[in-house]
Amino acid sequence: MASIFSKIIVGEIPSYTVAESEHFYAFLDINPLAKGHTLVVPKEEVDYFFDLSDHRLGELQIFAARIARSMKQVTNCKRVGQAVLGFEVPHAHLHLVPMNSTSDLDFSRPKLQLSSEEMSQIAEAIALNL
Amino acid sequence: MASIFSKIIVGEIPSYTVAESEHFYAFLDINPLAKGHTLVVPKEEVDYFFDLSDHRLGELQIFAARIARSMKQVTNCKRVGQAVLGFEVPHAHLHLVPMNSTSDLDFSRPKLQLSSEEMSQIAEAIALNL
Repeated sequence: MASIFSKIIVGEIPSYTVAESEHFYAFLDINPLAKGHTLVVPKEEVDYFFDLSDHRLGELQIFAARIARSMKQVTNCKRVGQAVLGFEVPHAHLHLVPMNSTSDLDFSRPKLQLSSEEMSQIAEAIALNL
Repeated sequence: MASIFSKIIVGEIPSYTVAESEHFYAFLDINPLAKGHTLVVPKEEVDYFFDLSDHRLGELQIFAARIARSMKQVTNCKRVGQAVLGFEVPHAHLHLVPMNSTSDLDFSRPKLQLSSEEMSQIAEAIALNL
């Protein structure tokens, strides 16, 4: 069965798209730690991040960096952090999170509730600044 | 002034070395979240992770993946997680952490206190399994 991320990639489940390339898709985390929190996923449906080929991992990091640089300018955060955990959705993904302190990457914190207007606006701003 | 990580790379400050290449150095985090918690750093002294060139970022991810695969086998964890935060040491670094649940990547948790024997043994085991 297709993962929830595969359904998002093909548009079967809607998402706030940030960027897309031949092999990767980036969209806003629906339960964000910060405004602009983005997930970067390979289109290839692999569960464990480090089961991706070296080549694909290198490409993914470069694709994510482009988004992170845009995100930092748009959100005016101090740094963009990144994290790979992988215990919730069995489809490899990398989190990009606008940060102003270490605790901003604490996944046990309550998630933000943003309106669909706020989500659309921030996704579009990051996408336009790529 | 050289960063603490640059001093570690040249051996001026001792560390538990896990791996080294022309451009990268990996060693155990002295305040680990889990046994085997490793820092991967570029030898180039750049503060912000995403200020590294795309080429270097891609190489770093591939170098880190090799260590992560060894670490998973050696520690028998469910997954190796990775994180970039960057608010403590002004020299870009990526954390690799053996994980069994999402909370294992919570940087606010109390850090482990391991003996130098335990640190040496785990560093050597990961290095030998590369």
